[in-house]
Amino acid sequence: MRVVHVDLAHRSYPIYIAAHLLDKIAALFRESSISRRIFLVVTPNVFELYGGKLTGTLQEAGFETTAIFIPDGERTKSIHTVENIYTFLIAQRAERSSTIVAVGGGVTGDIAGFAAATYLRGVPYVQVPTTLLSQVDASVGGKTGVNHPHGKNLIGAFYQPTLVCVDLTTLSTLPERDFRSGVYEILKYGIIYDREFFEYLDNHLEALLSRDEEVLEYVICRSCQIKGEVISQDEQERDLRRILNFGHTYAHALEVATHFHEITHGEAVGWGMLATIRLSRMIGRIDQETADRLSRVISRVGDLPNVAEVAPETLLEAMERDKKRINGLNLFLIVDEIGKVSPQQDLATDLIRKAWKQIVNPKS
Amino acid sequence: MRVVHVDLAHRSYPIYIAAHLLDKIAALFRESSISRRIFLVVTPNVFELYGGKLTGTLQEAGFETTAIFIPDGERTKSIHTVENIYTFLIAQRAERSSTIVAVGGGVTGDIAGFAAATYLRGVPYVQVPTTLLSQVDASVGGKTGVNHPHGKNLIGAFYQPTLVCVDLTTLSTLPERDFRSGVYEILKYGIIYDREFFEYLDNHLEALLSRDEEVLEYVICRSCQIKGEVISQDEQERDLRRILNFGHTYAHALEVATHFHEITHGEAVGWGMLATIRLSRMIGRIDQETADRLSRVISRVGDLPNVAEVAPETLLEAMERDKKRINGLNLFLIVDEIGKVSPQQDLATDLIRKAWKQIVNPKS
Repeated sequence: MRVVHVDLAHRSYPIYIAAHLLDKIAALFRESSISRRIFLVVTPNVFELYGGKLTGTLQEAGFETTAIFIPDGERTKSIHTVENIYTFLIAQRAERSSTIVAVGGGVTGDIAGFAAATYLRGVPYVQVPTTLLSQVDASVGGKTGVNHPHGKNLIGAFYQPTLVCVDLTTLSTLPERDFRSGVYEILKYGIIYDREFFEYLDNHLEALLSRDEEVLEYVICRSCQIKGEVISQDEQERDLRRILNFGHTYAHALEVATHFHEITHGEAVGWGMLATIRLSRMIGRIDQETADRLSRVISRVGDLPNVAEVAPETLLEAMERDKKRINGLNLFLIVDEIGKVSPQQDLATDLIRKAWKQIVNPKS
Repeated sequence: MRVVHVDLAHRSYPIYIAAHLLDKIAALFRESSISRRIFLVVTPNVFELYGGKLTGTLQEAGFETTAIFIPDGERTKSIHTVENIYTFLIAQRAERSSTIVAVGGGVTGDIAGFAAATYLRGVPYVQVPTTLLSQVDASVGGKTGVNHPHGKNLIGAFYQPTLVCVDLTTLSTLPERDFRSGVYEILKYGIIYDREFFEYLDNHLEALLSRDEEVLEYVICRSCQIKGEVISQDEQERDLRRILNFGHTYAHALEVATHFHEITHGEAVGWGMLATIRLSRMIGRIDQETADRLSRVISRVGDLPNVAEVAPETLLEAMERDKKRINGLNLFLIVDEIGKVSPQQDLATDLIRKAWKQIVNPKS
């Protein structure tokens, strides 16, 4: 078992990473003084896979578990789903010490975390992420929230979990496309922060894609470490934390433009990174060789869904509504070298459009 | 002008207290580096009283102000009002640096504060409380939130303002009943924390009730200081902060039992303090003389609305749903002496019922 300590003063917490971790979860809960009453927030699909084992193990150890079911999919990430959770918790007389446990992907974690942050002004919260993307991204940083009909993650709170349990075994049932979505975010950590990690990923990409357990354990641990190091220096995203948004200005706009379907978040980040690497090359920040090398590794993850039909103007309009916009300008994280990016805010709309067009239609 | 510094590490903030403070508000905003774009959350009634002056002063100083109107009354304190605020902010493209300014009573502050805490995971927030109750209570402590159909303040967040501006002049238009409601909370601070302040209030109660400006300025300042001292030691209400709930276990239940009308929050606290003083006497923690003296000062504030029709069982049922309940027990702050209370959780239901009956129907 590997443990990553996310260092946030009095709200620090551990991330446990191992195969078959669900078998030992009761001991970890006790170690973190989790209260007796537990509310699992979970989709029916995920409950079918792990609900029996999880509630069995916890009840055997003396915990009292109740499942709160939420529907599948990004559309469920609305204030209305959170309201349903409130109503359920109130009906069950959940108290301030009751603990909300999110079991599932990033959507489940975001919704359950926001409910935990705002029910009775905050109750304890545990994450059991079961997708690669949520294990390396959503489980660190305390971002919780839901979508508004006019944009992604516009409603939310910063709220840290008490602990995070990453069971590698849950990845064995993950569909191929969802698995690859997580790999894009993992590559991101190498590109923005750690050249050595990027080299490792370049050398072990095929083993990672075939879900080699040893490679997975290391790669998830290193990703959580990197994100943890960044956010412990800047929890509220005033400065350094922004580097985690590498590729995300394009990605978020792409998700809005495709109405959050047709493309996964990870795939959108894949496209966004490719566009930002092109942008970095266009303004001369990196040489062609570096740009090619970075793009090649991203491409080796697999075929990204075709987005040629998304009009560049639709994408730019969505960027205008991005919540990370400051004084009317979008922020891009430009690659300086492998392992280092820096923010740039004054890029011309023409350039942003051109980079996008070139990567989507490389021959045009 | 008096200034109270609420000490919460990196989220510390000042409370400015003075007559005619709205005239100088632009300078205070600049001192606290408030951004150019300001969204006032306000009811039409309050806007009619102070909206013109406030927007005039701010716009003259270069701020860009937009009013977001919310309806009057406790019923408006719902997640749906907050959703309307989100939609308005998004339509106006409010950014992370945009500031939400709550102008009005506690309900406005709670709603606007929760919107500020959760829009884009948190935007800056300023309070301009215009009722006595919100000036001495809601402006310190960072509690924000809304009601759920099944209970008061069940949804919310801890979120600190950037600054608070208390203009004593706004109290001149406050209806008598609302003014007295604030006085009950002020008496509470003396009873729970500061015997000397209680003596001052006992000696100056008539001057306070006639809204003497000098007395008001001191009393509001001292109340904010006391609340600030308490919460700076225990922001999340794990321990010491609980003393602020003196009288509130009865008060919240009474508000639920009367469906949040017929009685104001301050009046409910008045009744709750009387019942808790009786409870403290019944278990022998204070002598009859102290109980009489405390009750007499509370009674001098004015006639509390008749609540004899609220069945004790209805009250006890509402207590069972209180969010401050821990392991199925309600917490009471018992008076040890004037200026000191301590928590007690194991009181028999019979005792709780009896104390209530005795103060509501003293002759029965």
